Amino acid sequence: MTSTHPSLIERLHAVVGDAGLVLDAERQAAYLTDWPRKWTGRTPVVVRPNSTEETAAVMRLCHQTRTPVVPQGGNTGMTGAGIPDMDGAQIIVSMNRMNRILEVDATSNTMTVEAGVILASVQQAAADANRFFPLSLGAEGSCTIGGNLATNAGGISVLRYGNARDLALGVEVVLADGRVWDGLRALRKDNSGYDLRNLFIGSEGTLGVITRAVLKLFPAQHGRATAWVGLRSHKEAVALLSLTQSICGDRIIAFEMMSEFGMSMILRHVADTQRPLSGVHPYYVLIELADAQQELPGTLLEEALAAALEAGLADDAVLAVNDRQRQQFWKIREGVSQAQLREGHPLKHDIALPIARLVSFIDEANALIAASFPQLPVLNFGHIGDGNLHYNVLLPHGLADDERERLTAEVNLCIHDLAIAYRGSISAEHGVGRLRRDELRRYKSAVEKDLMRSIKATLDPDQLLNPGKVL
Amino acid sequence: MTSTHPSLIERLHAVVGDAGLVLDAERQAAYLTDWPRKWTGRTPVVVRPNSTEETAAVMRLCHQTRTPVVPQGGNTGMTGAGIPDMDGAQIIVSMNRMNRILEVDATSNTMTVEAGVILASVQQAAADANRFFPLSLGAEGSCTIGGNLATNAGGISVLRYGNARDLALGVEVVLADGRVWDGLRALRKDNSGYDLRNLFIGSEGTLGVITRAVLKLFPAQHGRATAWVGLRSHKEAVALLSLTQSICGDRIIAFEMMSEFGMSMILRHVADTQRPLSGVHPYYVLIELADAQQELPGTLLEEALAAALEAGLADDAVLAVNDRQRQQFWKIREGVSQAQLREGHPLKHDIALPIARLVSFIDEANALIAASFPQLPVLNFGHIGDGNLHYNVLLPHGLADDERERLTAEVNLCIHDLAIAYRGSISAEHGVGRLRRDELRRYKSAVEKDLMRSIKATLDPDQLLNPGKVL
Repeated sequence: MTSTHPSLIERLHAVVGDAGLVLDAERQAAYLTDWPRKWTGRTPVVVRPNSTEETAAVMRLCHQTRTPVVPQGGNTGMTGAGIPDMDGAQIIVSMNRMNRILEVDATSNTMTVEAGVILASVQQAAADANRFFPLSLGAEGSCTIGGNLATNAGGISVLRYGNARDLALGVEVVLADGRVWDGLRALRKDNSGYDLRNLFIGSEGTLGVITRAVLKLFPAQHGRATAWVGLRSHKEAVALLSLTQSICGDRIIAFEMMSEFGMSMILRHVADTQRPLSGVHPYYVLIELADAQQELPGTLLEEALAAALEAGLADDAVLAVNDRQRQQFWKIREGVSQAQLREGHPLKHDIALPIARLVSFIDEANALIAASFPQLPVLNFGHIGDGNLHYNVLLPHGLADDERERLTAEVNLCIHDLAIAYRGSISAEHGVGRLRRDELRRYKSAVEKDLMRSIKATLDPDQLLNPGKVL
Repeated sequence: MTSTHPSLIERLHAVVGDAGLVLDAERQAAYLTDWPRKWTGRTPVVVRPNSTEETAAVMRLCHQTRTPVVPQGGNTGMTGAGIPDMDGAQIIVSMNRMNRILEVDATSNTMTVEAGVILASVQQAAADANRFFPLSLGAEGSCTIGGNLATNAGGISVLRYGNARDLALGVEVVLADGRVWDGLRALRKDNSGYDLRNLFIGSEGTLGVITRAVLKLFPAQHGRATAWVGLRSHKEAVALLSLTQSICGDRIIAFEMMSEFGMSMILRHVADTQRPLSGVHPYYVLIELADAQQELPGTLLEEALAAALEAGLADDAVLAVNDRQRQQFWKIREGVSQAQLREGHPLKHDIALPIARLVSFIDEANALIAASFPQLPVLNFGHIGDGNLHYNVLLPHGLADDERERLTAEVNLCIHDLAIAYRGSISAEHGVGRLRRDELRRYKSAVEKDLMRSIKATLDPDQLLNPGKVL
């Protein structure tokens, strides 16, 4: 165990007080293991600053004592970015006390929040002001907006509203040396200098600690329509996306695909789920439209589905008749995460592709897996509207550790080499963290790695911010 | 005149050939004076590479010989960012030969272009594929998409579609030393590392030369509705924006305000313009809605206008009955630039503010100008929906140079100090270039200037890229 500077904890205590320090092992446990239970680390102390000033003072102390820092939000990440290593030298700076909504400005359509506000609270505060905050993902009840911005979270409405970075007008960031960059702007246009905001957003805590943000709000969506569609293959899914866009415009907020393999797995493992359609189809699509007008989404989606059935792109389709049914559709879609864990050990792949290349990617990946790993089933689902495919491969439970590690490495290499050959990304929305760091080194060009490293060296010359992540 | 490396032009010739070099003064003239005719510079040579490889070879030569470079697009910028200084040492690298549209992918909703493609050609190519590329601004017939990205252009549909940076999925950039960063991705999600794309976009050619881009396309907007509204004051304009958003959702693509002072000026100076409404009103707003559905925008806009008249927010309103009338409305809006030049010497201010603070900013600015410069009329218009105000102050023609310079400095200081006090921006969409460089130094925090300078030093250590601009 590396040693922590002797007076550090005392000095941190002077900044954040008793409520701001977590020293005992039992209370630290929740901060030290990530949500998928893939990584566990050790830390001398979890520090919970209560303001930007306290965060800055904490970072100044860490800078003076050369103490490495792991910033943490709701600890719901998929790549281990928020977990310290096992050396026990890295302190965790948790933002979970900075959880105030500072302002909702319905005229400007903005909300100013501290980094530790839970995403669901942001959504609720927007709804309370008759506005809409579109970021939405499985962990929304426990993830924080600061974590969403640090990882540039995606989720289910990217097609219409973009990723987390597109939903923030400004951020405030505490730098590695404790200085504060005040980029907390509520402006929809600002061309006065370099875009620092987007550099910090998505940098997974390796360039600075996001402490506050100004978020974009949208007009409330009073109308919503959701359909479940049965299809012959993934090829029809991509064609159906084009057809739906041509009829419904850009008010499609979600376009999610799933195979029958995934569907049957969910029906087996997730309580209170049933088939929305009477028949069995090789593939399914969940489509959701939203609009300020109440009636419109239903009318348009019906029109699109009729055209799809007519054109032979869809084999069967049903429109949710009420909110309960709509939630049942989503329960299926969201049941994937749980079901796959019951079925096996999922090797998750978070691939992004140009939409026009999805079909051939899936065909080629299926052929590769069938040839090299004929015993391994493929669970293939995702945000097709964004070109984001969760092309997961299931290992059986109970494999020996070394066998599981060997297969993981081989399958990842196979899928990720193919994604790169298709000019895709090996991390669409999950980020890099610890999970994809070595692979990033394999796939990024020398120029890009050099640019990233020199920016890191400029902003964090002592490598104190989230060491061992991303780069 | 600073000397150019003796063999440079010969070596450039070996890269780009005769067609790629402009050496004679007459042909150089169009590259050496900017569109508002505010800046003129000198250059030993204008180099026009025909490919990324040629651009990279040119930059390598400039790097080897320590030759400063001014990248140039359509030369329509507002801040002198594309014009060299008078020393005669800076070479111009014009992208105007790299004007090919490389791919239109209607399934992925993307278009891949070279940097020198004219914006109007991008719009047309999208329309030809039954898609929509929303970036639209006065100079669209001559500005290039590379210049739009380098300056993060705004224009008239930011409210709905964002700025230029929001419309590019990927860019390819030649760096200061001639290396090429291949960020030419057609992905809607990519969290595999730092967001380098947004660092180059909006950096006004000071961090790299954008050579190609993948642009986002949208479903074709078959329906469009445009209204001209007469109002009591700017206060009603902001309230009308909220009301229109609540009824029409986010399909409002333009929400433009203008005062009667501006209107009467346009009627005097711009041919074929007439009042859309019979009466005279202190303020006017142009609202435009677009949607994939043909009928919807008209129906919704009518509903919004009826509600506005009912609520006393609008005094009169007219909906364009056909495309000709719609163009007449826009002709008034776009006539401002021309009319103000006839009326005086406009001191242009490109202010961005939180939308809720527009009204009090205008009130306070009017009071300040009336108190300190009672002889100077204010021409106040802009993209209200984005919080972007062109708060221009007109100097009379024929002032002595020193008097004009004194007034310019005093008025800018007054307006820009106020904008900063309101947590606004002194450059919403025009950029910094040479025009606002000194002011940027005044208004940016020490931390922000330090971050910008260290990023510049990292990416362009020899200060060869567009020296004297932005920083």
